[in-house]
Amino acid sequence: MEFLATITVNLPRDLPADEAEHLRVTERARGLDLWRDGTLKRIWKVPGKWAVIALYSAESTTALQEMFESFPMYPYMSIDVQPLADHPVELTER
Amino acid sequence: MEFLATITVNLPRDLPADEAEHLRVTERARGLDLWRDGTLKRIWKVPGKWAVIALYSAESTTALQEMFESFPMYPYMSIDVQPLADHPVELTER
Amino acid sequence: MEFLATITVNLPRDLPADEAEHLRVTERARGLDLWRDGTLKRIWKVPGKWAVIALYSAESTTALQEMFESFPMYPYMSIDVQPLADHPVELTER
Amino acid sequence: MEFLATITVNLPRDLPADEAEHLRVTERARGLDLWRDGTLKRIWKVPGKWAVIALYSAESTTALQEMFESFPMYPYMSIDVQPLADHPVELTER
Amino acid sequence: MEFLATITVNLPRDLPADEAEHLRVTERARGLDLWRDGTLKRIWKVPGKWAVIALYSAESTTALQEMFESFPMYPYMSIDVQPLADHPVELTER
Amino acid sequence: MEFLATITVNLPRDLPADEAEHLRVTERARGLDLWRDGTLKRIWKVPGKWAVIALYSAESTTALQEMFESFPMYPYMSIDVQPLADHPVELTER
Amino acid sequence: MEFLATITVNLPRDLPADEAEHLRVTERARGLDLWRDGTLKRIWKVPGKWAVIALYSAESTTALQEMFESFPMYPYMSIDVQPLADHPVELTER
Amino acid sequence: MEFLATITVNLPRDLPADEAEHLRVTERARGLDLWRDGTLKRIWKVPGKWAVIALYSAESTTALQEMFESFPMYPYMSIDVQPLADHPVELTER
Amino acid sequence: MEFLATITVNLPRDLPADEAEHLRVTERARGLDLWRDGTLKRIWKVPGKWAVIALYSAESTTALQEMFESFPMYPYMSIDVQPLADHPVELTER
Amino acid sequence: MEFLATITVNLPRDLPADEAEHLRVTERARGLDLWRDGTLKRIWKVPGKWAVIALYSAESTTALQEMFESFPMYPYMSIDVQPLADHPVELTER
Repeated sequence: MEFLATITVNLPRDLPADEAEHLRVTERARGLDLWRDGTLKRIWKVPGKWAVIALYSAESTTALQEMFESFPMYPYMSIDVQPLADHPVELTER
Repeated sequence: MEFLATITVNLPRDLPADEAEHLRVTERARGLDLWRDGTLKRIWKVPGKWAVIALYSAESTTALQEMFESFPMYPYMSIDVQPLADHPVELTER
Repeated sequence: MEFLATITVNLPRDLPADEAEHLRVTERARGLDLWRDGTLKRIWKVPGKWAVIALYSAESTTALQEMFESFPMYPYMSIDVQPLADHPVELTER
Repeated sequence: MEFLATITVNLPRDLPADEAEHLRVTERARGLDLWRDGTLKRIWKVPGKWAVIALYSAESTTALQEMFESFPMYPYMSIDVQPLADHPVELTER
Repeated sequence: MEFLATITVNLPRDLPADEAEHLRVTERARGLDLWRDGTLKRIWKVPGKWAVIALYSAESTTALQEMFESFPMYPYMSIDVQPLADHPVELTER
Repeated sequence: MEFLATITVNLPRDLPADEAEHLRVTERARGLDLWRDGTLKRIWKVPGKWAVIALYSAESTTALQEMFESFPMYPYMSIDVQPLADHPVELTER
Repeated sequence: MEFLATITVNLPRDLPADEAEHLRVTERARGLDLWRDGTLKRIWKVPGKWAVIALYSAESTTALQEMFESFPMYPYMSIDVQPLADHPVELTER
Repeated sequence: MEFLATITVNLPRDLPADEAEHLRVTERARGLDLWRDGTLKRIWKVPGKWAVIALYSAESTTALQEMFESFPMYPYMSIDVQPLADHPVELTER
Repeated sequence: MEFLATITVNLPRDLPADEAEHLRVTERARGLDLWRDGTLKRIWKVPGKWAVIALYSAESTTALQEMFESFPMYPYMSIDVQPLADHPVELTER
Repeated sequence: MEFLATITVNLPRDLPADEAEHLRVTERARGLDLWRDGTLKRIWKVPGKWAVIALYSAESTTALQEMFESFPMYPYMSIDVQPLADHPVELTER
């Protein structure tokens, strides 16, 4: 199953610099892991916003939520989830 | 997996009476089938609206959409889908 | 009577750690009590949000509000309440 | 229990004049019945809108919905329901 | 003239405890005064919100605003005002 | 008392031409009457919209609604009403 | 040219008392100047809100914005501007 | 003075083909006139919408509205107007 | 460049059956062409809606709009376009 | 390609004065650079708001986002991006 997620990040301004840096480093690493194992299928920046749009593969909505909760920055994220259903056009070879 | 769906029905006023009646009868039958086989786990009327809130079980978002498309009144429905993830409290016996 | 409640929690970041922990422990206990006595009929996480959707049984809107006010985290919650009316399909045996 | 309902009426323009008149007469009669028996506790016009705000007494959300469905104009109404909980100030005599 | 007001209260968390308590006591006293003299005709809690819905009688919109400004908690309130017009059904005896 | 009203007009396209013309003529006459007797204190077009913003004087919200209902085009209008309270700056001479 | 402006003021709570007082005094003086010279044609309080609705005369949108920027409290204001076009009814004498 | 206008066109489907064609031809001609005389300074299509965004020069809001009313398709347009104020950066030569 | 488009289709009910069928056949063919040549990179159904979410590749916003206008059903579509910017995570091999 | 951007700036009040001044000076310089090299084609103040509307030229959405990220005040900006497609009227000479 695939889900589109619009993820907005709001790091509080008073976060100590090293904590913020730690979050950025671990978040990037987590993202790369999900990219490499194919869970994160696509990811884009949203022009003008501190936000990304990501296409995830997940076995269930519960698995999707567990993945979100594994994000180091999850406490500072607001995520809009759009469930997706297969479209027959994609069954056509190209 | 479970999904909450808020289903608003808009039967066009100029639908011939027998066609409307046929839709109502077949929709009710479809709803009862889904209720009996457990796909439709709960259903309520939304006070003041031509709408219901329904709790469905589905194996995937694609299966969910196929079920929607099997509704006789689907062409006249607007459906808002809320994906749901398991909550640990429900693991507790009662 | 049943009500769907979408409960969003906003613990302030400057809450002392022990106070936050105390809130979490007592809130969880309150939730389990309501689950065990059947007042809380269902509960789900909302994927991507610090929110749950809960299905409550209550004798009246006043009893519902009293239950909300008994939540330890109530001062930090925003709750959207959807009243629900019975649907005849549920009268059918399954 | 009390509920505030904002009721907007949209009689279709192509309704035959006698059908529209019949609806208006029966709706008014239904409203007066509910007023006399105390189910309709207060009712106001919303300035500038084809809408009323009404304060109803109902034993349950299901009873409330049954009352709505008894309105002759219900098929042409859109109703927003606000559940209300008792406020301690009203316990004070005056 | 009657007005419905939806009053949401947002006491800042860093308000000193005694100042908050003083506000609560004086606000409650002001509310009871308005209830006893009939200016406050009805008041309800909004389930799930730090809000009330109140029905006020006022001679004019300016008098209504002066009453709001007399509330001790007014600096921390957000108030939505709905003007109301008389409905002929209420002229019927019951 | 003064009220700002944003009035949007939606004449149905299938209105017979003479009926539409009759509405326009009588509406204009009604507007001029209200202008001459001072009930209509100011009126503007909203650039880009089939709408006007009007400043009315009215003794009460009920009188305001009665005035709206006296508009020949009222059945085709959607009116947003903003109640206004006096501001002390206007007490200053100029 | 005339413009309607809905001005909402949000003085931060941690503003030193004398600074807040200074802002109030200078803002009031600026408002009276604009009232006396006719730039501020009308002004009302919005019942229930820390907001005013003001009717300004301005030679251009740039002149309007320069006037806003001359307000001592401008950094703490949020202003919605509605441009207005002349309506022929106002050409009629009264 | 400059104004940004987002113009959405809704030609009714039951408009006779020749009337629609006449509207398109005259609208295009009107647009070209405004382009050539510099009143229409820029114009773009909004991707995915039957809408354009146009930058107009106008002496006043009343002149702007008169221009809108001169559009052959004005009865079928919905126009959102954004007033614009000069920005000092544009005073810099380039 | 990539763009996400949420495409909602509203075929009017009074469209002759053969015209509707022709639109469906040609739209499907157009979609398959774009899929095969890689312009349409992904496409999903939106559960519960007569809508799809599609990921397109386009050289420019003008080329994107030209592609939309080439859709047989374009007159009956409402399309929300989300521009996308590259995200560095996608530069990582997998 | 051209894009309209509505840029709202929210400098936090507790920013040290010299840091805020530094941001203002560097932001202005960056803006003038983009103006001089033609990337910033037009810019206006939005009357009543701490916001500007800017018309940018960019080779791609990714280039547009890189430009945004080069703004010194980008961490304090919220930017709404409207992609624009060419309109044939602009092909006409004037």
